[in-house]
Amino acid sequence: MTVTIIGLGLIGGSIALDLKARRFAERIIGVDKNPRHRDTALERGLVDEIMKLHSGIQEADLIILAVPVDGIKELLPLILDYVTHQTVTDMGSSKVEIIDSIKDHPKRGNFVPSHPMAGTEFSGPEAAINGLFAKKVGIICDMADSNPKALETVTNFYMALNMRLVFMTAREHDSHAAYVSHISHLTSFALALTVLDKEKNEKNIFNLASGGFDSTVRLAASSAAMWVPVFSQNKNNVIEVIETYIQKMTDFKDSIASGDDQKVEELIQEANIIQKTLTQEA
Amino acid sequence: MTVTIIGLGLIGGSIALDLKARRFAERIIGVDKNPRHRDTALERGLVDEIMKLHSGIQEADLIILAVPVDGIKELLPLILDYVTHQTVTDMGSSKVEIIDSIKDHPKRGNFVPSHPMAGTEFSGPEAAINGLFAKKVGIICDMADSNPKALETVTNFYMALNMRLVFMTAREHDSHAAYVSHISHLTSFALALTVLDKEKNEKNIFNLASGGFDSTVRLAASSAAMWVPVFSQNKNNVIEVIETYIQKMTDFKDSIASGDDQKVEELIQEANIIQKTLTQEA
Repeated sequence: MTVTIIGLGLIGGSIALDLKARRFAERIIGVDKNPRHRDTALERGLVDEIMKLHSGIQEADLIILAVPVDGIKELLPLILDYVTHQTVTDMGSSKVEIIDSIKDHPKRGNFVPSHPMAGTEFSGPEAAINGLFAKKVGIICDMADSNPKALETVTNFYMALNMRLVFMTAREHDSHAAYVSHISHLTSFALALTVLDKEKNEKNIFNLASGGFDSTVRLAASSAAMWVPVFSQNKNNVIEVIETYIQKMTDFKDSIASGDDQKVEELIQEANIIQKTLTQEA
Repeated sequence: MTVTIIGLGLIGGSIALDLKARRFAERIIGVDKNPRHRDTALERGLVDEIMKLHSGIQEADLIILAVPVDGIKELLPLILDYVTHQTVTDMGSSKVEIIDSIKDHPKRGNFVPSHPMAGTEFSGPEAAINGLFAKKVGIICDMADSNPKALETVTNFYMALNMRLVFMTAREHDSHAAYVSHISHLTSFALALTVLDKEKNEKNIFNLASGGFDSTVRLAASSAAMWVPVFSQNKNNVIEVIETYIQKMTDFKDSIASGDDQKVEELIQEANIIQKTLTQEA
């Protein structure tokens, strides 16, 4: 199979590594508007060749859109205009707005909206790693709107990444993603900003970060190019989860301020449940 | 040297493992009011023997208080009443209120207030591990108020744990600890509560946690017994940092809600700086 990957960053590059290693793709074509990404992808052997968008589509059996979600929304209608037999999937972290943008397209059935729940805080083709997706969850949305052949191709693609598949509607995806992924990034960004506000003139204080700060703030290195359009496209869910989050933080503030230790204890013990649930489900 | 460790949990137990391995202590006495902790500590060989508080103090050269900070505040005056030549140090995550409680004690000089910036989200003697403290930072507060001999003993104790030492006032410690440690735990607790609120009837959704949620929420497993009294004793700093944090989260909410992508991008790029700083200082 010939696979064309549009967007040779962390996700696109890591996909290329896995598809080659698993022999899913005999030939991988890369498309990227950034010359530095194209060079690095070729140098690292992530892709076999680089093409322009139109040729990359023509040559492909499977087209994987791995650019930020604003780029997906812009490129997807153009790509569907070109495709004949090709299957198209996207790796976007928000789904409703992307799907709405091509819902009446005559080639809608060639498209399988999906989202691999994997990543690191790093970006670019130099950040691509083997096995990034292994044993994590890939989500396919609104499966009834895709052709069976396209669905089969994308299912096999996720199998080649060694992911477990979960099927849901785009609307469900966007709500859940806000709660388990988007808010985690926002809490890390806000934590980084809080500490930088206080500690900007005291670099040595970062010596103290071993007390748990490092893991909590890890995601604060994540790229604005990826996250700004996700928050924008998933605005309603993201606002809802931020409001709930601020309420929880306010509960802590109020009970600590009033010296209500029993309430603080109850909040912590309720929070403790998350770890048990995560461990059970893993 | 004979070392008595009061509180055989994650911290006390991990200290015992290191002090034996580094041959800092020939004899380690354990004191704990919880019979299960005493049994586990003996079974795991963390301590050589178990004693009651009074005998444990009498036999010791160095007494290490590794109980939650409310317990430290309660026990420290009683311990100082008993000591003659012994050095006493505590492992508490807040310092001002503890030090204030014994500031006029005739044996104040025997006490060295300190804080090893290390831990995990687990607790109890079964959670004790080798090398927990290695290459992390230990803080000694208000050093001028401790006797030189006591200070020397505690400095050597931290060397045996393979920690780097930082000296500061208790007031500085409590402010910095609120910003780099206490708030990290609060953000994890609040994140867990937010997600549990939404997802309580949908256990499978935790499949999705690989998108960064797992590392951000890790600290939400931390124990209420430890953290409730820390937040209480460091109330003013903790309230201040929560307020700053809520403001940062509100900045995200307002700019996402109003569609101000440029502001969201600026916030994320400012947050990105934290990772560079952490990496440089590590």
